[in-house]
Amino acid sequence: MNLRLDVAYDGRPFHGFARQRDVRTVQGDLEASLVRVLRTDIATAVAGRTDAGVHAIGQVVSVPDLPDDIDPVALRNALNANLAPYISVWAISPATDDFHARFSARSRTYVYAILTGDVPDPFLAQTSLYHPKELDVAAMNEAAGHLAGHHDFSSFGRVPEPGASAERVLFELRCTRDGRLIRVRARANAFIQQMVRALVGTLLHVGVGKIDPGEVPSILERRDRSLAGPVAPPHGLCLVSVEYDEGWKAPFRPRGPHVSGGG
Amino acid sequence: MNLRLDVAYDGRPFHGFARQRDVRTVQGDLEASLVRVLRTDIATAVAGRTDAGVHAIGQVVSVPDLPDDIDPVALRNALNANLAPYISVWAISPATDDFHARFSARSRTYVYAILTGDVPDPFLAQTSLYHPKELDVAAMNEAAGHLAGHHDFSSFGRVPEPGASAERVLFELRCTRDGRLIRVRARANAFIQQMVRALVGTLLHVGVGKIDPGEVPSILERRDRSLAGPVAPPHGLCLVSVEYDEGWKAPFRPRGPHVSGGG
Repeated sequence: MNLRLDVAYDGRPFHGFARQRDVRTVQGDLEASLVRVLRTDIATAVAGRTDAGVHAIGQVVSVPDLPDDIDPVALRNALNANLAPYISVWAISPATDDFHARFSARSRTYVYAILTGDVPDPFLAQTSLYHPKELDVAAMNEAAGHLAGHHDFSSFGRVPEPGASAERVLFELRCTRDGRLIRVRARANAFIQQMVRALVGTLLHVGVGKIDPGEVPSILERRDRSLAGPVAPPHGLCLVSVEYDEGWKAPFRPRGPHVSGGG
Repeated sequence: MNLRLDVAYDGRPFHGFARQRDVRTVQGDLEASLVRVLRTDIATAVAGRTDAGVHAIGQVVSVPDLPDDIDPVALRNALNANLAPYISVWAISPATDDFHARFSARSRTYVYAILTGDVPDPFLAQTSLYHPKELDVAAMNEAAGHLAGHHDFSSFGRVPEPGASAERVLFELRCTRDGRLIRVRARANAFIQQMVRALVGTLLHVGVGKIDPGEVPSILERRDRSLAGPVAPPHGLCLVSVEYDEGWKAPFRPRGPHVSGGG
């Protein structure tokens, strides 16, 4: 059978999601727990390869080719008992054989949290960027409007291999204020490396007046990383959800005519 | 002048509030920052000497005998810029000369957070006790009703010196459920050592059926620490507020007849 795991993690202790030799990663911890609990070889696929220090509440992992007799609830409980408290597998569900956490995903949604105001908050310090200076959210949203859409995002990150395409479809980029917190929400079919944090770093420069929203179209067009803002620190960022066709979420339920695909 | 500091901290990196040689404490960090910023000797008094790992959002510290020319807002900003993100001084206000954070306090309020439910949450793991087994909150509140009031709490903690009184007035002890979180709220004129966490440990034993609420009066009466439940772990506990007479909060405002003292 093929299982879908919905996973949350506090990114602080990890060198990112993807397994690496000699350093602690989310995938390393998760696969080690799966092997300990299932006592079989496993391979995992993941929807979003988050960077070091980035959090997740809606990460999705698929684990194919498992024995058919696995009870998803018992496996979830055994994994959570086995994992450090930094990771929680909050749901496990059977998926169709062709479900793949990465390739089946239609989009990924990230939220970056910025705490403004006169005083820092020790309980938000690990999951938001503290930025005491006031930010012009209207200007940030004007800039965000220029960034949303189908573009080459070379000015906002790296592609994994030289020559690979940096074209992505940014479905949504929007800043909202909720008391002292400003949240930047970004949803795209996929992101190039460090793209969300470079978008946020650029919006921060717009918010303090260093970049005018009207400059943003030319920053995009010139495909030059040095023109956009810096990469915002990782601890403010969280992968909040991954969107699949409705069919993936409820593999055996007929898909109704009014169900919107791709979240 | 005499200043009142309102302080929040994430208790995890600290060996409690009170200064100790060779280990990191909240008081140690705070006093070092005060000395660096003010360049004068200072002495601090604190409302609640929280244990290692216990958090605070409403800790109160008083600093007497300061030069008269200190700007409280500038001092607050300088302290926050100087302190590690685990501590935040969220307000500084001038107090009357006789205000003392500890001796002027009428009561202290703590909240202990318990996360129930099938799956842990990595973002609540540092500030709540994860207890997957369901708890009988009605039974816990029945037991809490026996514990509230003026009692000798020898069964629920230690007194600092042998022979000292363990009598305290527990104004409030109450459990409330908010989705998956159960909060135990405890307010007393003062607490003996580990008292809140021993009360919570006892309520947890009641919640799982190990102690019957009807046994609680005799546990209190027998003044034997071994009869009550264990000390709950520190990371679920937070000092949420300290209550003073209204006069302390607004030192130059006449106290009206309808203002209730002691919070």
